[in-house]
Amino acid sequence: MKRRDFLGALAAGATWRAHAAPRPQIEASTIRSQLEALSVFGRPEGGTFQSGVSRIGYSDSDIAGRQYVMDLMKSAGADVRIDAAGNIFASRRGTDSSLPPLLFGSHIDSVPGGGNFDGDLGSLSSVHILRTLSDLRIETRRPLTAVVWACEEASFSGTALNGSRAAAGLSKPDELTQVSRGLTKAESIRRIGGDPTRMEQARIEKGKYHAYLELHIEQGGVLAREKVPVGVVDGIVSIDDHEAIITGFANHAGTTPMTDRQDALIAASALTLAVREVVASEPGAQVGTVGHMEVAPNAVNVIPGEVRMSIEFRDLSSAKIKRLGEKIRARATAIARETRTEIRINHKGHNESAAAAPEIQRAIESAAGRLRLEARHLPSGAGHDAQMMATLMPMGMIFVPSIGGISHSPKELTTWQDCANGANALLEVVMDLAA
Amino acid sequence: MKRRDFLGALAAGATWRAHAAPRPQIEASTIRSQLEALSVFGRPEGGTFQSGVSRIGYSDSDIAGRQYVMDLMKSAGADVRIDAAGNIFASRRGTDSSLPPLLFGSHIDSVPGGGNFDGDLGSLSSVHILRTLSDLRIETRRPLTAVVWACEEASFSGTALNGSRAAAGLSKPDELTQVSRGLTKAESIRRIGGDPTRMEQARIEKGKYHAYLELHIEQGGVLAREKVPVGVVDGIVSIDDHEAIITGFANHAGTTPMTDRQDALIAASALTLAVREVVASEPGAQVGTVGHMEVAPNAVNVIPGEVRMSIEFRDLSSAKIKRLGEKIRARATAIARETRTEIRINHKGHNESAAAAPEIQRAIESAAGRLRLEARHLPSGAGHDAQMMATLMPMGMIFVPSIGGISHSPKELTTWQDCANGANALLEVVMDLAA
Repeated sequence: MKRRDFLGALAAGATWRAHAAPRPQIEASTIRSQLEALSVFGRPEGGTFQSGVSRIGYSDSDIAGRQYVMDLMKSAGADVRIDAAGNIFASRRGTDSSLPPLLFGSHIDSVPGGGNFDGDLGSLSSVHILRTLSDLRIETRRPLTAVVWACEEASFSGTALNGSRAAAGLSKPDELTQVSRGLTKAESIRRIGGDPTRMEQARIEKGKYHAYLELHIEQGGVLAREKVPVGVVDGIVSIDDHEAIITGFANHAGTTPMTDRQDALIAASALTLAVREVVASEPGAQVGTVGHMEVAPNAVNVIPGEVRMSIEFRDLSSAKIKRLGEKIRARATAIARETRTEIRINHKGHNESAAAAPEIQRAIESAAGRLRLEARHLPSGAGHDAQMMATLMPMGMIFVPSIGGISHSPKELTTWQDCANGANALLEVVMDLAA
Repeated sequence: MKRRDFLGALAAGATWRAHAAPRPQIEASTIRSQLEALSVFGRPEGGTFQSGVSRIGYSDSDIAGRQYVMDLMKSAGADVRIDAAGNIFASRRGTDSSLPPLLFGSHIDSVPGGGNFDGDLGSLSSVHILRTLSDLRIETRRPLTAVVWACEEASFSGTALNGSRAAAGLSKPDELTQVSRGLTKAESIRRIGGDPTRMEQARIEKGKYHAYLELHIEQGGVLAREKVPVGVVDGIVSIDDHEAIITGFANHAGTTPMTDRQDALIAASALTLAVREVVASEPGAQVGTVGHMEVAPNAVNVIPGEVRMSIEFRDLSSAKIKRLGEKIRARATAIARETRTEIRINHKGHNESAAAAPEIQRAIESAAGRLRLEARHLPSGAGHDAQMMATLMPMGMIFVPSIGGISHSPKELTTWQDCANGANALLEVVMDLAA
């Protein structure tokens, strides 16, 4: 029941029943002030909220943002703990401490040049749910744990879902020595308060938590286009990440005839266009992207000798993206021959598709109904920490509309009312599942 | 006459004539030790001479290399001076101070990941010619000036021939505020001892010098393939530098359908392949290169929103490369339409083709003949400081073989004997023109 309905019912002289405690509600203005406060950490110099954010995981601005969130957790009366992977957990007791806690949260790191809603909305709403329940002295049977996962985004050429992947026990042994932005992942984890020597302690045992919930912006355009405020996610797509390393021969751009060249960027350009063609070669909603490219030596007057580029495929079907990977390898072999370059394609990572638990999907539908918000089902084209949690426990996700489907961009935008609707839907589901 | 011939003539009892002073000679071992000493400034960490060099103009390693060369100049007894643009001049008196001095030299900055011969050979040979003449107390009628030009290479997206262009009075007014590697060009010039507030003082008046000579590696494969030790350059190609700025829309790589994308890297890839096609659309030896590309935001899971890339055309005919520029603009318009991106192409710079003075070409031929070295004429596909000097005075260039035509690469290689042959040819021409 929304507060207005509750007050309206009181005004109409309705009888107040003791066991029907007031349903708490999160105000749009509260979500707004918290998102605006968080947005300053990683904001471009001289920018505004609309300038977006570059809060790269493990960076100084990430560390500052995490401190802001931990302060909110503490002021909500929660017990705050950082695990070995750098994930932040805020726990609140339930009336039955024998029950596994309900886990819910998101992340606060961003892509370079990202927006202020991706991850932030779910993280701040989760923490604010603890605060709201404390303020109203509402107890739940189950303990509650809000979580902020470390480095969800694949910043630069790294792999994504770093904190939640460690919690799912799916980190690869060699990850800790990988270098990004001049630091190994081990050094990065230590910077945010984790302990890379004890990564196995970050692993969450099956049965430890009752379920995992995550509120997130859709990042696609379906909900906004159809003017539906609540999305009930039925599954998260599978992702294959590849890195192509193209080796040509760096030579002088003035003295080397066109026919003598082994130009790595010519090969990379052909491969980039081939990714688009391979994706279009089959029917369906699969996508393929070259988002990252580094050219060496990258000088105006030198023929590129080496190019490193990412190739990413996504679809609900793991078999389909595996097939697309095989097709692009075949195309790469032909391009290498034509351009007299060498092309190696390394499979960097695979995120399995993840189904949302039907009972949680139903709980989200019910919550939306109680809030008188229209809801619809949809898949998630984006990867989320929730897909890691789906390997351990029942998982559910709530989406709210992204205007124009824009995300991973400073122009990413969700209305404050849609933010509050999402937060209140999450609050409803939390109270339902923890009751 | 080579020293061996001279000694041989003495041994044969030939009469020594007082006015026929001993022809000095530069040894391969001397050139080698100096090139090896210079190579440590900008050498990759843990590398060797064979690892090449990244001595970017205005960088710390450039500054260290310049100091090494200035020390050599001083120990040769020359007067050393840095002009407002950061060019280094080492002067030696002639017996007739009323004559304009002869100018000769090259540069010591490199491309990122370049080799140890490009520029270095001509610079160190020129300084060592002063040393050799001093050691042997050989006087010339004309004063001599060895020069090391500042930042010859177009490092990153900057323009090339920075020091010599300022000396030719062809710098553009807005250059000083351009930023490369985090510094404006004004700040960069100040770092190497120049004075950006008095750039006009770097300008060389016509008639100040008698002529300009430059020894350089060929950087192409002609001399090495034909086993000819001395190249007589008859002209330097014209260069047009463009920058294409492609604006798409950065969005989430998982949630944006392929048909909704405005992918700047797809457009950049098509444009890169179009450069090659445009170059092949006409007969001739013209070349076109995309050497520099920056992708933003450059993250695996974000559709690229902006790409900046260089486009460079070279040919002896300025009219032809202008026409190629018009063709690539037409292709860019079509690509922008197809990819729903915006493409702007800015003309960043034009280096006019430059002819070598016939009388200096003849002097180089004569010098090679005296040294019993075969010589052939050829054009230069690379730009050189000499083309700036050609706008002020008669100019000539000597090329020596580059093995495999490799340059702007750590694998750039000229044999020590070919280095010494080039240095001795330059010495012969200097003594001829300054006699």
